[in-house]
Amino acid sequence: MEIIKQFELSKEYLESLQQAIEAEDLNFIQESLDGVNVADIAALLDELSMSESIFVLRVLDAQLAADIIIELEATNQHRVLKELEVQEMANLIELMDSDDGADILNLFLEREREDIISHFQDKVKSDQILELLRYDEDTAGGIMAKEYIRANKNWNVVQTINEIRRQAENVSKIYSIFVVNNRQQLMGIVSLKRIVLASDETKIEDIYEEEVISVPTYMDQEEVAEVMRKYDLESLPVVNSKNKLVGRITVDDILDVIREEAEEDIQAMTGISDTVDEYDSVIKLSKARLPWLLIGICGGLLGAGFIGFFEEGLSKVTALAFFIPLITATGGNVGIQTSSIVVQSLASKSIFDDSMAKRFLKVLLVAILNGLILATFVFGVVVLFYKTDVSFAMVVSIALFSVVLLASFMGTITPIILDKIGINPALASGPFITTANDLIGLAVYFLVAMSLLHI
Amino acid sequence: MEIIKQFELSKEYLESLQQAIEAEDLNFIQESLDGVNVADIAALLDELSMSESIFVLRVLDAQLAADIIIELEATNQHRVLKELEVQEMANLIELMDSDDGADILNLFLEREREDIISHFQDKVKSDQILELLRYDEDTAGGIMAKEYIRANKNWNVVQTINEIRRQAENVSKIYSIFVVNNRQQLMGIVSLKRIVLASDETKIEDIYEEEVISVPTYMDQEEVAEVMRKYDLESLPVVNSKNKLVGRITVDDILDVIREEAEEDIQAMTGISDTVDEYDSVIKLSKARLPWLLIGICGGLLGAGFIGFFEEGLSKVTALAFFIPLITATGGNVGIQTSSIVVQSLASKSIFDDSMAKRFLKVLLVAILNGLILATFVFGVVVLFYKTDVSFAMVVSIALFSVVLLASFMGTITPIILDKIGINPALASGPFITTANDLIGLAVYFLVAMSLLHI
Repeated sequence: MEIIKQFELSKEYLESLQQAIEAEDLNFIQESLDGVNVADIAALLDELSMSESIFVLRVLDAQLAADIIIELEATNQHRVLKELEVQEMANLIELMDSDDGADILNLFLEREREDIISHFQDKVKSDQILELLRYDEDTAGGIMAKEYIRANKNWNVVQTINEIRRQAENVSKIYSIFVVNNRQQLMGIVSLKRIVLASDETKIEDIYEEEVISVPTYMDQEEVAEVMRKYDLESLPVVNSKNKLVGRITVDDILDVIREEAEEDIQAMTGISDTVDEYDSVIKLSKARLPWLLIGICGGLLGAGFIGFFEEGLSKVTALAFFIPLITATGGNVGIQTSSIVVQSLASKSIFDDSMAKRFLKVLLVAILNGLILATFVFGVVVLFYKTDVSFAMVVSIALFSVVLLASFMGTITPIILDKIGINPALASGPFITTANDLIGLAVYFLVAMSLLHI
Repeated sequence: MEIIKQFELSKEYLESLQQAIEAEDLNFIQESLDGVNVADIAALLDELSMSESIFVLRVLDAQLAADIIIELEATNQHRVLKELEVQEMANLIELMDSDDGADILNLFLEREREDIISHFQDKVKSDQILELLRYDEDTAGGIMAKEYIRANKNWNVVQTINEIRRQAENVSKIYSIFVVNNRQQLMGIVSLKRIVLASDETKIEDIYEEEVISVPTYMDQEEVAEVMRKYDLESLPVVNSKNKLVGRITVDDILDVIREEAEEDIQAMTGISDTVDEYDSVIKLSKARLPWLLIGICGGLLGAGFIGFFEEGLSKVTALAFFIPLITATGGNVGIQTSSIVVQSLASKSIFDDSMAKRFLKVLLVAILNGLILATFVFGVVVLFYKTDVSFAMVVSIALFSVVLLASFMGTITPIILDKIGINPALASGPFITTANDLIGLAVYFLVAMSLLHI
């Protein structure tokens, strides 16, 4: 028995594995990796060179190699597979669950995909995968697998256990059995626990639950994740428009979806245009970050041109420049806060949504309250510590209050509009909006100054 | 059969339910909610007033009421329970799984908790919950449940099925059976599928898998989530320091953990100090957001004071003011990008971590590359479009380059330091750092200007 074997995979082991590959010591490779979890072997291979990885995969049992490839990092998956012969690749993909096989094939061009599938030996598997490839990758159809146990409602427990036995090799994890009628329409669900506890002759129709939650093939994966989380499901049947059972989604797929979506949101919020991590190359990291930085820079240059219009006034009242960072920073902070709350509520839509008008009223009230508090505070500090006259302090306070209001408004409508037109609303908390809010803030500040100070 | 019954819970139904509560029409309440999923009933109750909720809960079957309370929003859970008699509360909590019961009890003060537990009828349940309450809420011990099936390795399949039958009422979901020795130490795991497929007389020790992944009670829940995601587990045994089996964690608990942690990170990044959503009250929303806004304001006021030092230079070269937003915004954007990449890599620690020095070198290289590109771009634009002399354009470019470098450095060390001292590193992408970067940017900008323009 071992407690999480991952901690045993040390840098020392990595080195001895590389030596074994060099010396073509097949025994060492096979024996030292025996019993190690596939996820850990995959993490190990991600550290090896391409040719070393290929060598290890070829040495290991084919089923194990297929499982490892599924767990590799996305970039490595494609690189490793491209090095293999087409027939070799087809053999490995055939050993995967249909959903994983389809994911892997999605890494290739359509022409390459068809070539690989034509090398399949198993007609059933190739049909299954071809079906899955038809669905959009981000929908229930795109993440479901064809491996599941279905039982006809007229069967008894023994017949069902025989079906499980027949499918045991294909379906690695069984949580529940989906119950269908003669037309393969989903009728309900029966847990494996109930099957175990029932007597052999019990009819499925006497023990299955009719209240089954299913999703249509076209449902977005983020919604699927929310359904599984909300209803505490470990496996979820997917049906087509005629309510025919076409696949199942398991909770481990959903964990990956949730992680992906959370990472995408954070990357959208921080203005990183590509999925990168610290271990990517300098060039890739730089390229992923430049676009948004350039947008910020262009915003800044526009802002410079804008302030330039007020050069004359600025040269009369230099103190105006002092509070530029205060105005722009507050606009940015308020905008990000508001939009992130809206994004969050878009992600977990309540059944009883408040009307749009009611939502805006609330945002407005919060903005007025916070704006008043902040503006009063700033007015006091500016009068007391910066020894300016009261009318100047008024300019800063009024501009600040207006910026809080406008930034709240922008932070509310932007994610809602983005969501409506099918763009990830988390982008609304990103640098694009911060830049827009900077410009709005500057405009408000100088217009208020112009009209109140008559400059 | 119904496809996700949630969509049927309309605003109209909510109104008719409220009328039925008013008229004390118990039949309507019981019949219309029959078969509706607990998560949906809970969402419905979250919309009702406190007294209406209590009325519905008292009308429903006690087990159903207990399940609904678990699914209520955290704030409502406490409010609803406080309205009940202690004995009523104790009866409901006894019907919950031990982990949910412990979570609910954690909402109360220690004195209240003891009072409630003393009203328990079931000694086993009260012992289980008292044990769980000993663990930190954010650790494996704090999220595990005491409901699981254990089988001695010397048992056969029939004995194991009898144990499942005996526990069937307590353990609602069975994925796997944990295998222990006579000292209750975890030896392995056997899937329910294997039990179904094995013959009655098969010994557990002949079919169980020894390669079981378990976690210690003190492991942080975020790490537990990562273990379950990485190894695709649906149930995870928890052991104490002597490797004795003490509980199990199921994947549905983990889905909630992942969501909570992602929300916490986003709220930390956006500077919202409390867990709020769009449906909270104006005062609560305002209070959650004010602290960070005030920090931003104080930063802005400090910045104003700081620019004030350079008033003389500024009155000579007014154009210096134009580029203040450019400098501060770029510093902020670079800082957020860098820190979010570092936070992400802290969350998914690789086994083979690059050394600190190597990481800094890479951050430095990316910063130099991006800094050079941005500075060159800005230099060109300023010379061409703003008709300033070359030395002024140099000031802006050099300041921009330095700010990119410094903000990258800050964005790298801040999350690492926060993580080391046990604070959520996502805070490093929040307004605090943006404010700090603003001030650093201003300092660099004016110091470069002073020395190059001799003002």
